Amino acid sequence: MVEKIISFIKQTVERYKYSGAVVGISGGVDSAVTAALCVRALGKERVFGLLLPERDSSPDSTKLGIEFCNWLGISYRIINITPTLRKMGVYKLQPPAFLIPYSIKKHYAIKKWKLQGSENAFIKDLKNIGDEEMRRGMAYYRAKHRVRMCLLYLEAEKKGFAVVGTTNRTEYLTGFYVKWGDDATDIEPLLHLYKTEVFELARILEIPERIVNRPPSPDLVPGLTDEVAMGISYTDLDRILQKIEKGKSLDDELPEKAEKVKVLLEAAKYRNLRMLSIRSIDQ
Amino acid sequence: MVEKIISFIKQTVERYKYSGAVVGISGGVDSAVTAALCVRALGKERVFGLLLPERDSSPDSTKLGIEFCNWLGISYRIINITPTLRKMGVYKLQPPAFLIPYSIKKHYAIKKWKLQGSENAFIKDLKNIGDEEMRRGMAYYRAKHRVRMCLLYLEAEKKGFAVVGTTNRTEYLTGFYVKWGDDATDIEPLLHLYKTEVFELARILEIPERIVNRPPSPDLVPGLTDEVAMGISYTDLDRILQKIEKGKSLDDELPEKAEKVKVLLEAAKYRNLRMLSIRSIDQ
Repeated sequence: MVEKIISFIKQTVERYKYSGAVVGISGGVDSAVTAALCVRALGKERVFGLLLPERDSSPDSTKLGIEFCNWLGISYRIINITPTLRKMGVYKLQPPAFLIPYSIKKHYAIKKWKLQGSENAFIKDLKNIGDEEMRRGMAYYRAKHRVRMCLLYLEAEKKGFAVVGTTNRTEYLTGFYVKWGDDATDIEPLLHLYKTEVFELARILEIPERIVNRPPSPDLVPGLTDEVAMGISYTDLDRILQKIEKGKSLDDELPEKAEKVKVLLEAAKYRNLRMLSIRSIDQ
Repeated sequence: MVEKIISFIKQTVERYKYSGAVVGISGGVDSAVTAALCVRALGKERVFGLLLPERDSSPDSTKLGIEFCNWLGISYRIINITPTLRKMGVYKLQPPAFLIPYSIKKHYAIKKWKLQGSENAFIKDLKNIGDEEMRRGMAYYRAKHRVRMCLLYLEAEKKGFAVVGTTNRTEYLTGFYVKWGDDATDIEPLLHLYKTEVFELARILEIPERIVNRPPSPDLVPGLTDEVAMGISYTDLDRILQKIEKGKSLDDELPEKAEKVKVLLEAAKYRNLRMLSIRSIDQ
Protein backbone atom coordinates (compact mmCIF):
# COMPACT_ATOMS: atom_id res chain seq x y z
CA MET A 1 0.00 0.00 0.00
CA VAL A 2 2.77 2.42 1.06
CA GLU A 3 5.04 1.64 -1.91
CA LYS A 4 2.25 2.09 -4.45
CA ILE A 5 1.41 5.57 -3.14
CA ILE A 6 5.06 6.61 -2.93
CA SER A 7 5.70 5.67 -6.54
CA PHE A 8 2.44 7.37 -7.61
CA ILE A 9 3.57 10.64 -5.99
CA LYS A 10 7.08 10.35 -7.43
CA GLN A 11 5.93 9.56 -10.96
CA THR A 12 3.20 12.20 -11.02
CA VAL A 13 5.52 14.94 -9.76
CA GLU A 14 8.13 13.99 -12.39
CA ARG A 15 5.68 13.62 -15.26
CA TYR A 16 4.07 17.02 -14.69
CA LYS A 17 7.43 18.67 -14.02
CA TYR A 18 6.70 19.87 -10.50
CA SER A 19 9.80 20.57 -8.40
CA GLY A 20 8.25 19.40 -5.14
CA ALA A 21 5.10 19.31 -3.00
CA VAL A 22 3.30 21.81 -0.77
CA VAL A 23 1.06 20.24 1.89
CA GLY A 24 -1.34 22.13 4.17
CA ILE A 25 -0.53 20.87 7.68
CA SER A 26 -3.59 20.88 9.93
CA GLY A 27 -2.30 18.94 12.92
CA GLY A 28 -4.56 16.04 11.90
CA VAL A 29 -3.82 12.54 10.65
CA ASP A 30 -4.60 12.96 6.92
CA SER A 31 -2.18 15.81 6.35
CA ALA A 32 0.47 14.11 8.51
CA VAL A 33 0.24 10.90 6.46
CA THR A 34 0.25 12.87 3.19
CA ALA A 35 3.34 14.87 4.13
CA ALA A 36 5.17 11.76 5.36
CA LEU A 37 4.41 9.97 2.07
CA CYS A 38 5.62 13.00 0.10
CA VAL A 39 8.90 12.98 2.04
CA ARG A 40 9.41 9.30 1.25
CA ALA A 41 8.67 9.95 -2.42
CA LEU A 42 10.56 13.20 -2.94
CA GLY A 43 12.92 13.75 -0.01
CA LYS A 44 12.66 16.30 2.82
CA GLU A 45 14.05 19.17 0.78
CA ARG A 46 11.26 18.99 -1.77
CA VAL A 47 8.34 19.01 0.68
CA PHE A 48 7.05 22.24 2.21
CA GLY A 49 4.45 22.48 4.98
CA LEU A 50 2.01 25.37 5.21
CA LEU A 51 0.15 25.95 8.50
CA LEU A 52 -2.91 28.16 8.01
CA PRO A 53 -4.67 28.76 11.35
CA GLU A 54 -7.41 31.34 11.94
CA ARG A 55 -9.23 32.69 15.00
CA ASP A 56 -11.47 29.61 15.35
CA SER A 57 -8.77 26.95 14.92
CA SER A 58 -8.06 24.74 17.89
CA PRO A 59 -5.02 26.14 19.74
CA ASP A 60 -3.53 22.61 19.66
CA SER A 61 -3.55 22.43 15.86
CA THR A 62 -0.70 24.83 15.21
CA LYS A 63 1.37 23.45 18.08
CA LEU A 64 0.99 19.89 16.83
CA GLY A 65 1.55 20.99 13.24
CA ILE A 66 4.88 22.65 14.10
CA GLU A 67 5.97 19.65 16.18
CA PHE A 68 5.10 17.39 13.27
CA CYS A 69 7.02 19.42 10.65
CA ASN A 70 10.06 19.37 12.92
CA TRP A 71 9.68 15.62 13.51
CA LEU A 72 9.46 15.06 9.75
CA GLY A 73 12.34 17.48 9.11
CA ILE A 74 10.58 19.63 6.50
CA SER A 75 10.56 23.41 6.10
CA TYR A 76 7.29 25.10 6.94
CA ARG A 77 5.62 28.47 7.22
CA ILE A 78 2.75 29.63 9.43
CA ILE A 79 0.33 32.16 7.95
CA ASN A 80 -2.54 33.22 10.17
CA ILE A 81 -5.45 33.71 7.77
CA THR A 82 -7.57 35.70 10.24
CA PRO A 83 -6.68 39.14 8.74
CA THR A 84 -7.53 37.92 5.22
CA LEU A 85 -10.85 36.42 6.32
CA ARG A 86 -11.67 39.63 8.18
CA LYS A 87 -10.93 41.74 5.08
CA MET A 88 -13.25 39.49 3.09
CA GLY A 89 -16.07 40.02 5.58
CA VAL A 90 -16.19 36.35 6.60
CA TYR A 91 -16.21 36.97 10.35
CA LYS A 92 -19.22 39.26 10.10
CA LEU A 93 -21.24 36.10 9.46
CA GLN A 94 -20.73 34.47 12.84
CA PRO A 95 -20.36 36.15 16.22
CA PRO A 96 -17.92 34.39 18.60
CA ALA A 97 -15.51 37.26 18.81
CA PHE A 98 -11.76 37.18 18.74
CA LEU A 99 -10.99 37.28 22.44
CA ILE A 100 -13.48 34.70 23.67
CA PRO A 101 -11.75 31.54 25.00
CA TYR A 102 -11.81 28.49 22.75
CA SER A 103 -13.80 26.40 25.27
CA ILE A 104 -16.68 28.90 25.26
CA LYS A 105 -16.70 29.18 21.46
CA LYS A 106 -16.82 25.40 21.33
CA HIS A 107 -19.85 25.18 23.59
CA TYR A 108 -21.62 27.89 21.60
CA ALA A 109 -20.86 26.34 18.21
CA ILE A 110 -21.98 22.83 19.14
CA LYS A 111 -25.22 24.16 20.61
CA LYS A 112 -25.88 26.07 17.40
CA TRP A 113 -25.17 23.02 15.23
CA LYS A 114 -27.57 20.91 17.31
CA LEU A 115 -30.27 23.56 16.99
CA GLN A 116 -30.17 22.91 13.23
CA GLY A 117 -31.35 19.38 14.07
CA SER A 118 -28.19 17.46 14.91
CA GLU A 119 -28.77 14.53 12.53
CA ASN A 120 -29.80 16.68 9.63
CA ALA A 121 -27.49 19.67 9.66
CA PHE A 122 -24.80 18.00 7.53
CA ILE A 123 -27.40 16.59 5.13
CA LYS A 124 -28.85 20.10 4.73
CA ASP A 125 -25.31 21.31 4.21
CA LEU A 126 -24.70 18.75 1.43
CA LYS A 127 -27.94 19.75 -0.26
CA ASN A 128 -27.27 23.49 0.14
CA ILE A 129 -30.56 23.98 1.92
CA GLY A 130 -31.49 25.56 5.23
CA ASP A 131 -32.68 28.83 6.74
CA GLU A 132 -30.69 32.07 6.71
CA GLU A 133 -28.83 31.12 9.88
CA MET A 134 -27.76 27.80 8.34
CA ARG A 135 -26.72 29.48 5.07
CA ARG A 136 -24.60 32.05 6.89
CA GLY A 137 -22.91 29.21 8.76
CA MET A 138 -22.13 27.38 5.50
CA ALA A 139 -20.75 30.50 3.81
CA TYR A 140 -18.68 31.11 6.94
CA TYR A 141 -16.94 27.80 7.36
CA ARG A 142 -16.42 27.11 3.67
CA ALA A 143 -14.65 30.42 3.02
CA LYS A 144 -11.87 29.29 5.37
CA HIS A 145 -10.86 26.24 3.33
CA ARG A 146 -11.16 28.20 0.08
CA VAL A 147 -8.80 30.90 1.32
CA ARG A 148 -6.43 28.15 2.43
CA MET A 149 -6.52 26.76 -1.10
CA CYS A 150 -5.59 30.21 -2.50
CA LEU A 151 -2.59 30.41 -0.17
CA LEU A 152 -1.44 26.85 -0.82
CA TYR A 153 -1.39 27.63 -4.56
CA LEU A 154 0.32 30.98 -4.04
CA GLU A 155 3.14 29.22 -2.22
CA ALA A 156 3.23 26.23 -4.59
CA GLU A 157 3.26 28.32 -7.76
CA LYS A 158 6.08 30.54 -6.51
CA LYS A 159 8.15 27.41 -5.92
CA GLY A 160 6.98 25.42 -8.96
CA PHE A 161 5.65 22.79 -6.53
CA ALA A 162 2.40 20.79 -6.72
CA VAL A 163 -0.37 21.27 -4.16
CA VAL A 164 -0.79 17.81 -2.66
CA GLY A 165 -4.22 17.27 -1.10
CA THR A 166 -5.32 15.16 1.84
CA THR A 167 -8.88 14.08 0.98
CA ASN A 168 -9.61 10.40 1.66
CA ARG A 169 -12.21 8.12 0.10
CA THR A 170 -14.61 8.28 3.07
CA GLU A 171 -14.66 12.09 2.91
CA TYR A 172 -15.04 12.05 -0.84
CA LEU A 173 -17.93 9.57 -0.91
CA THR A 174 -19.84 11.36 1.84
CA GLY A 175 -19.13 14.85 0.48
CA PHE A 176 -17.26 15.70 3.68
CA TYR A 177 -15.10 18.37 2.08
CA VAL A 178 -15.48 21.96 0.95
CA LYS A 179 -16.27 22.27 -2.74
CA TRP A 180 -13.40 24.26 -4.31
CA GLY A 181 -11.63 24.25 -0.95
CA ASP A 182 -9.73 21.22 0.34
CA ASP A 183 -10.79 19.27 -2.78
CA ALA A 184 -9.02 21.73 -5.12
CA THR A 185 -5.48 20.39 -5.49
CA ASP A 186 -3.05 18.93 -8.03
CA ILE A 187 -2.46 15.47 -6.58
CA GLU A 188 -4.57 13.42 -4.15
CA PRO A 189 -2.55 10.46 -2.83
CA LEU A 190 -5.18 9.30 -0.27
CA LEU A 191 -8.32 9.56 -2.38
CA HIS A 192 -8.57 5.80 -2.85
CA LEU A 193 -8.31 5.03 0.90
CA TYR A 194 -11.01 4.91 3.55
CA LYS A 195 -10.36 6.93 6.71
CA THR A 196 -9.73 3.72 8.68
CA GLU A 197 -7.06 2.80 6.10
CA VAL A 198 -5.44 6.22 6.57
CA PHE A 199 -5.14 5.38 10.28
CA GLU A 200 -3.47 2.08 9.34
CA LEU A 201 -1.03 3.99 7.13
CA ALA A 202 -0.33 6.38 10.01
CA ARG A 203 0.75 3.44 12.17
CA ILE A 204 2.93 2.00 9.40
CA LEU A 205 4.57 5.40 8.91
CA GLU A 206 4.95 5.80 12.68
CA ILE A 207 3.19 9.16 12.79
CA PRO A 208 3.40 10.54 16.37
CA GLU A 209 0.65 9.23 18.68
CA ARG A 210 -0.50 12.70 19.62
CA ILE A 211 -1.62 13.27 16.05
CA VAL A 212 -3.07 9.81 15.45
CA ASN A 213 -5.06 9.84 18.70
CA ARG A 214 -6.72 13.23 18.14
CA PRO A 215 -10.42 13.03 17.27
CA PRO A 216 -10.57 13.85 13.53
CA SER A 217 -12.01 17.31 12.96
CA PRO A 218 -12.24 19.72 10.04
CA ASP A 219 -11.20 22.41 12.58
CA LEU A 220 -13.50 24.94 10.93
CA VAL A 221 -16.03 25.46 13.71
CA PRO A 222 -14.83 25.17 17.32
CA GLY A 223 -15.42 21.72 18.79
CA LEU A 224 -17.17 20.24 15.76
CA THR A 225 -15.44 16.92 15.10
CA ASP A 226 -16.01 14.83 11.96
CA GLU A 227 -18.03 12.24 13.86
CA VAL A 228 -20.26 14.86 15.54
CA ALA A 229 -20.82 16.59 12.19
CA MET A 230 -21.64 13.39 10.29
CA GLY A 231 -23.49 11.77 13.21
CA ILE A 232 -21.72 8.40 12.85
CA SER A 233 -18.34 6.93 13.84
CA TYR A 234 -15.68 6.28 11.19
CA THR A 235 -15.58 2.59 12.10
CA ASP A 236 -19.31 2.21 11.42
CA LEU A 237 -19.24 4.50 8.40
CA ASP A 238 -16.31 2.77 6.66
CA ARG A 239 -17.63 -0.72 7.37
CA ILE A 240 -21.06 0.14 5.91
CA LEU A 241 -19.57 2.05 2.95
CA GLN A 242 -17.39 -0.95 2.07
CA LYS A 243 -20.39 -3.30 2.23
CA ILE A 244 -22.40 -1.01 -0.04
CA GLU A 245 -19.50 -0.72 -2.50
CA LYS A 246 -19.05 -4.50 -2.63
CA GLY A 247 -22.80 -5.09 -2.93
CA LYS A 248 -22.89 -6.98 0.38
CA SER A 249 -25.97 -7.29 2.58
CA LEU A 250 -26.57 -4.69 5.31
CA ASP A 251 -28.84 -7.03 7.29
CA ASP A 252 -26.45 -7.32 10.21
CA GLU A 253 -26.17 -3.54 10.56
CA LEU A 254 -28.44 -1.46 12.79
CA PRO A 255 -31.14 -0.22 10.39
CA GLU A 256 -30.77 3.42 11.50
CA LYS A 257 -27.02 3.36 10.83
CA ALA A 258 -27.42 1.75 7.40
CA GLU A 259 -30.10 4.30 6.55
CA LYS A 260 -27.89 7.16 7.78
CA VAL A 261 -25.10 6.11 5.38
CA LYS A 262 -27.50 5.72 2.46
CA VAL A 263 -28.89 9.21 3.06
CA LEU A 264 -25.33 10.59 3.26
CA LEU A 265 -24.33 8.96 -0.03
CA GLU A 266 -27.44 10.23 -1.77
CA ALA A 267 -26.98 13.79 -0.49
CA ALA A 268 -23.26 13.76 -1.33
CA LYS A 269 -24.09 13.28 -5.01
CA TYR A 270 -25.05 16.95 -5.12
CA ARG A 271 -21.58 18.00 -4.04
CA ASN A 272 -19.69 15.41 -6.08
CA LEU A 273 -21.26 16.62 -9.32
CA ARG A 274 -19.04 19.69 -8.93
CA MET A 275 -19.93 21.76 -11.99
CA LEU A 276 -22.89 21.33 -14.32
CA SER A 277 -22.85 22.19 -18.00
CA ILE A 278 -25.14 21.33 -20.91
CA ARG A 279 -22.61 18.73 -22.03
CA SER A 280 -22.46 17.05 -18.60
CA ILE A 281 -26.28 16.90 -18.52
CA ASP A 282 -26.49 15.51 -22.07
CA GLN A 283 -24.08 12.71 -21.34
CA MET B 1 -29.49 27.94 -29.00
CA VAL B 2 -30.81 30.61 -26.60
CA GLU B 3 -33.87 28.61 -25.53
CA LYS B 4 -31.85 25.48 -24.81
CA ILE B 5 -29.50 27.37 -22.47
CA ILE B 6 -32.33 29.19 -20.73
CA SER B 7 -34.14 25.97 -19.96
CA PHE B 8 -30.86 24.33 -18.84
CA ILE B 9 -30.28 27.16 -16.31
CA LYS B 10 -33.89 27.09 -15.12
CA GLN B 11 -34.02 23.33 -14.69
CA THR B 12 -30.63 23.07 -13.01
CA VAL B 13 -31.39 25.85 -10.52
CA GLU B 14 -34.73 24.22 -9.67
CA ARG B 15 -33.39 20.68 -9.45
CA TYR B 16 -30.58 21.61 -7.08
CA LYS B 17 -32.82 23.92 -5.06
CA TYR B 18 -30.84 27.11 -5.59
CA SER B 19 -32.84 30.32 -5.05
CA GLY B 20 -31.06 32.27 -7.79
CA ALA B 21 -27.75 32.97 -9.50
CA VAL B 22 -24.65 35.02 -8.66
CA VAL B 23 -22.55 36.06 -11.67
CA GLY B 24 -19.15 37.76 -11.52
CA ILE B 25 -19.48 40.76 -13.84
CA SER B 26 -16.17 41.63 -15.50
CA GLY B 27 -17.30 44.16 -18.09
CA GLY B 28 -16.59 41.57 -20.80
CA VAL B 29 -18.83 39.68 -23.19
CA ASP B 30 -18.89 36.24 -21.51
CA SER B 31 -20.17 37.47 -18.16
CA ALA B 32 -22.64 39.83 -19.86
CA VAL B 33 -24.10 36.99 -21.94
CA THR B 34 -24.20 34.71 -18.89
CA ALA B 35 -26.01 37.26 -16.72
CA ALA B 36 -28.48 38.08 -19.52
CA LEU B 37 -29.28 34.37 -19.95
CA CYS B 38 -29.75 33.98 -16.18
CA VAL B 39 -32.20 36.89 -16.17
CA ARG B 40 -34.21 35.28 -18.98
CA ALA B 41 -34.21 31.97 -17.10
CA LEU B 42 -34.85 33.18 -13.56
CA GLY B 43 -36.04 36.79 -13.66
CA LYS B 44 -34.17 39.96 -12.64
CA GLU B 45 -34.87 39.54 -8.93
CA ARG B 46 -33.08 36.20 -8.76
CA VAL B 47 -29.84 37.30 -10.45
CA PHE B 48 -27.11 39.13 -8.55
CA GLY B 49 -24.00 40.70 -10.10
CA LEU B 50 -20.71 40.88 -8.25
CA LEU B 51 -18.02 43.26 -9.53
CA LEU B 52 -14.59 42.39 -8.15
CA PRO B 53 -11.97 44.85 -9.40
CA GLU B 54 -8.42 45.14 -8.06
CA ARG B 55 -5.55 47.57 -8.54
CA ASP B 56 -4.57 46.14 -11.96
CA SER B 57 -8.07 45.96 -13.46
CA SER B 58 -8.76 48.18 -16.42
CA PRO B 59 -10.54 51.32 -15.18
CA ASP B 60 -13.17 50.73 -17.89
CA SER B 61 -14.15 47.34 -16.53
CA THR B 62 -15.99 48.53 -13.43
CA LYS B 63 -17.65 51.40 -15.29
CA LEU B 64 -18.92 49.09 -18.03
CA GLY B 65 -19.91 46.47 -15.45
CA ILE B 66 -22.07 48.93 -13.52
CA GLU B 67 -23.63 50.26 -16.72
CA PHE B 68 -24.41 46.71 -17.77
CA CYS B 69 -26.04 45.71 -14.45
CA ASN B 70 -28.22 48.81 -14.66
CA TRP B 71 -29.09 48.06 -18.28
CA LEU B 72 -30.05 44.51 -17.32
CA GLY B 73 -31.91 45.72 -14.22
CA ILE B 74 -30.17 43.42 -11.71
CA SER B 75 -28.87 44.21 -8.21
CA TYR B 76 -25.12 44.24 -7.87
CA ARG B 77 -22.33 44.90 -5.43
CA ILE B 78 -18.77 46.15 -6.00
CA ILE B 79 -16.05 44.72 -3.78
CA ASN B 80 -12.53 45.94 -4.46
CA ILE B 81 -10.34 42.90 -3.77
CA THR B 82 -7.10 44.90 -3.55
CA PRO B 83 -7.01 44.94 0.30
CA THR B 84 -7.56 41.16 0.46
CA LEU B 85 -4.86 40.48 -2.14
CA ARG B 86 -2.49 42.77 -0.27
CA LYS B 87 -3.15 40.94 3.05
CA MET B 88 -2.38 37.66 1.28
CA GLY B 89 0.94 38.97 0.02
CA VAL B 90 -0.02 38.73 -3.65
CA TYR B 91 1.13 42.22 -4.61
CA LYS B 92 4.60 41.59 -3.25
CA LEU B 93 5.11 39.33 -6.28
CA GLN B 94 4.90 42.02 -8.94
CA PRO B 95 6.02 45.64 -8.74
CA PRO B 96 3.78 48.09 -10.65
CA ALA B 97 2.71 50.05 -7.60
CA PHE B 98 -0.72 51.31 -6.73
CA LEU B 99 -0.43 54.90 -7.94
CA ILE B 100 1.15 54.28 -11.33
CA PRO B 101 -1.22 55.14 -14.22
CA TYR B 102 -2.84 52.20 -16.02
CA SER B 103 -1.21 53.06 -19.36
CA ILE B 104 2.30 52.76 -17.87
CA LYS B 105 1.48 49.48 -16.10
CA LYS B 106 0.15 48.20 -19.40
CA HIS B 107 3.35 49.02 -21.26
CA TYR B 108 5.45 47.42 -18.51
CA ALA B 109 3.36 44.24 -18.32
CA ILE B 110 3.31 43.62 -22.07
CA LYS B 111 7.07 44.14 -22.28
CA LYS B 112 7.55 41.63 -19.48
CA TRP B 113 5.26 39.07 -21.14
CA LYS B 114 7.16 39.40 -24.42
CA LEU B 115 10.47 38.92 -22.63
CA GLN B 116 9.21 35.46 -21.67
CA GLY B 117 9.18 34.70 -25.41
CA SER B 118 5.80 35.98 -26.64
CA GLU B 119 4.73 32.77 -28.39
CA ASN B 120 5.75 30.53 -25.57
CA ALA B 121 4.74 32.30 -22.39
CA PHE B 122 1.22 30.90 -22.34
CA ILE B 123 2.45 27.41 -23.24
CA LYS B 124 4.92 27.59 -20.34
CA ASP B 125 2.05 28.79 -18.19
CA LEU B 126 -0.10 25.79 -19.18
CA LYS B 127 2.74 23.42 -18.41
CA ASN B 128 3.60 25.14 -15.12
CA ILE B 129 7.18 25.64 -16.21
CA GLY B 130 9.41 28.68 -16.38
CA ASP B 131 12.03 30.56 -14.41
CA GLU B 132 11.44 32.24 -11.07
CA GLU B 133 10.20 35.44 -12.71
CA MET B 134 7.65 33.47 -14.75
CA ARG B 135 6.53 31.48 -11.71
CA ARG B 136 6.02 34.63 -9.63
CA GLY B 137 3.91 36.04 -12.46
CA MET B 138 1.76 32.92 -12.58
CA ALA B 139 1.23 32.85 -8.80
CA TYR B 140 0.38 36.56 -9.01
CA TYR B 141 -2.30 36.56 -11.66
CA ARG B 142 -3.92 33.29 -10.66
CA ALA B 143 -4.46 34.36 -7.04
CA LYS B 144 -6.78 37.10 -8.29
CA HIS B 145 -9.31 34.77 -9.90
CA ARG B 146 -9.13 32.39 -6.95
CA VAL B 147 -9.94 35.17 -4.47
CA ARG B 148 -12.82 36.17 -6.76
CA MET B 149 -14.12 32.61 -6.59
CA CYS B 150 -14.03 32.76 -2.75
CA LEU B 151 -16.07 35.96 -2.76
CA LEU B 152 -18.58 34.75 -5.35
CA TYR B 153 -19.26 31.70 -3.15
CA LEU B 154 -19.44 33.79 0.02
CA GLU B 155 -22.16 35.91 -1.58
CA ALA B 156 -23.93 32.97 -3.23
CA GLU B 157 -23.97 30.80 -0.11
CA LYS B 158 -25.37 33.60 2.04
CA LYS B 159 -28.24 33.95 -0.44
CA GLY B 160 -28.67 30.24 -1.25
CA PHE B 161 -27.83 31.10 -4.87
CA ALA B 162 -25.69 29.14 -7.37
CA VAL B 163 -22.40 30.52 -8.66
CA VAL B 164 -22.90 30.65 -12.42
CA GLY B 165 -19.65 30.59 -14.38
CA THR B 166 -18.71 32.16 -17.68
CA THR B 167 -16.13 29.77 -19.17
CA ASN B 168 -16.63 28.99 -22.87
CA ARG B 169 -15.53 25.99 -24.90
CA THR B 170 -12.58 27.77 -26.54
CA GLU B 171 -11.18 28.76 -23.15
CA TYR B 172 -11.80 25.30 -21.75
CA LEU B 173 -10.11 23.44 -24.63
CA THR B 174 -7.07 25.70 -24.64
CA GLY B 175 -6.78 25.80 -20.84
CA PHE B 176 -7.34 29.56 -20.92
CA TYR B 177 -8.70 29.76 -17.38
CA VAL B 178 -7.32 29.70 -13.86
CA LYS B 179 -7.41 26.25 -12.30
CA TRP B 180 -9.64 26.51 -9.19
CA GLY B 181 -10.42 30.12 -10.12
CA ASP B 182 -12.90 31.04 -12.84
CA ASP B 183 -13.45 27.32 -13.56
CA ALA B 184 -14.72 26.65 -10.01
CA THR B 185 -18.48 27.22 -10.18
CA ASP B 186 -21.80 25.42 -9.83
CA ILE B 187 -23.25 25.88 -13.31
CA GLU B 188 -21.51 26.62 -16.63
CA PRO B 189 -24.05 27.64 -19.26
CA LEU B 190 -21.50 28.58 -21.97
CA LEU B 191 -19.10 25.66 -21.66
CA HIS B 192 -20.37 24.00 -24.87
CA LEU B 193 -19.96 27.19 -26.98
CA TYR B 194 -16.92 28.50 -28.83
CA LYS B 195 -15.98 32.13 -28.17
CA THR B 196 -17.24 33.12 -31.62
CA GLU B 197 -20.61 31.56 -30.75
CA VAL B 198 -20.69 33.59 -27.52
CA PHE B 199 -20.35 36.71 -29.68
CA GLU B 200 -23.30 35.51 -31.78
CA LEU B 201 -25.33 35.03 -28.62
CA ALA B 202 -24.36 38.54 -27.50
CA ARG B 203 -25.87 39.95 -30.69
CA ILE B 204 -29.05 37.88 -30.30
CA LEU B 205 -29.40 39.07 -26.69
CA GLU B 206 -28.65 42.65 -27.78
CA ILE B 207 -25.81 43.10 -25.29
CA PRO B 208 -24.61 46.76 -25.47
CA GLU B 209 -22.05 47.40 -28.25
CA ARG B 210 -19.51 48.85 -25.84
CA ILE B 211 -19.18 45.46 -24.17
CA VAL B 212 -19.29 43.35 -27.34
CA ASN B 213 -16.71 45.51 -29.12
CA ARG B 214 -14.10 45.42 -26.33
CA PRO B 215 -11.08 43.23 -27.07
CA PRO B 216 -11.57 40.13 -24.87
CA SER B 217 -9.16 40.15 -21.95
CA PRO B 218 -8.80 38.20 -18.70
CA ASP B 219 -8.14 41.63 -17.10
CA LEU B 220 -5.55 40.11 -14.79
CA VAL B 221 -2.40 41.77 -16.07
CA PRO B 222 -2.68 45.31 -17.48
CA GLY B 223 -3.07 45.35 -21.25
CA LEU B 224 -2.76 41.60 -21.78
CA THR B 225 -5.70 40.66 -24.02
CA ASP B 226 -6.73 37.05 -24.73
CA GLU B 227 -5.38 37.21 -28.27
CA VAL B 228 -2.00 38.65 -27.20
CA ALA B 229 -1.71 36.00 -24.46
CA MET B 230 -2.62 33.09 -26.73
CA GLY B 231 -0.82 34.50 -29.78
CA ILE B 232 -3.73 33.82 -32.16
CA SER B 233 -7.06 35.48 -33.02
CA TYR B 234 -10.35 33.92 -31.85
CA THR B 235 -11.56 33.65 -35.44
CA ASP B 236 -8.52 31.57 -36.42
CA LEU B 237 -8.50 29.63 -33.17
CA ASP B 238 -12.18 28.64 -33.26
CA ARG B 239 -12.10 27.73 -36.96
CA ILE B 240 -9.08 25.46 -36.46
CA LEU B 241 -10.46 23.97 -33.21
CA GLN B 242 -13.71 23.08 -34.95
CA LYS B 243 -11.85 21.43 -37.83
CA ILE B 244 -9.78 19.38 -35.40
CA GLU B 245 -12.86 18.35 -33.43
CA LYS B 246 -14.69 17.28 -36.59
CA GLY B 247 -11.62 15.47 -37.92
CA LYS B 248 -11.41 17.77 -40.95
CA SER B 249 -8.21 18.49 -42.86
CA LEU B 250 -6.05 21.46 -41.82
CA ASP B 251 -4.38 21.66 -45.25
CA ASP B 252 -5.91 25.03 -46.09
CA GLU B 253 -4.66 26.58 -42.83
CA LEU B 254 -1.32 28.33 -42.46
CA PRO B 255 0.96 25.61 -41.07
CA GLU B 256 2.24 27.83 -38.23
CA LYS B 257 -1.33 28.57 -37.08
CA ALA B 258 -2.40 24.93 -37.23
CA GLU B 259 0.74 23.98 -35.30
CA LYS B 260 0.09 26.71 -32.72
CA VAL B 261 -3.39 25.31 -31.99
CA LYS B 262 -2.09 21.74 -31.74
CA VAL B 263 0.57 22.81 -29.26
CA LEU B 264 -2.06 24.69 -27.24
CA LEU B 265 -4.37 21.67 -27.12
CA GLU B 266 -1.54 19.40 -26.07
CA ALA B 267 -0.34 21.76 -23.32
CA ALA B 268 -3.90 22.38 -22.10
CA LYS B 269 -4.25 18.70 -21.24
CA TYR B 270 -2.09 19.36 -18.20
CA ARG B 271 -4.55 21.88 -16.83
CA ASN B 272 -7.68 20.00 -17.83
CA LEU B 273 -6.63 16.95 -15.84
CA ARG B 274 -7.37 19.01 -12.75
CA MET B 275 -6.61 16.61 -9.93
CA LEU B 276 -4.67 13.35 -10.08
CA SER B 277 -5.31 10.36 -7.84
CA ILE B 278 -4.31 6.71 -8.00
CA ARG B 279 -7.81 5.88 -9.20
CA SER B 280 -7.69 8.46 -12.02
CA ILE B 281 -4.32 7.08 -13.14
CA ASP B 282 -5.54 3.46 -13.00
CA GLN B 283 -8.56 4.19 -15.16
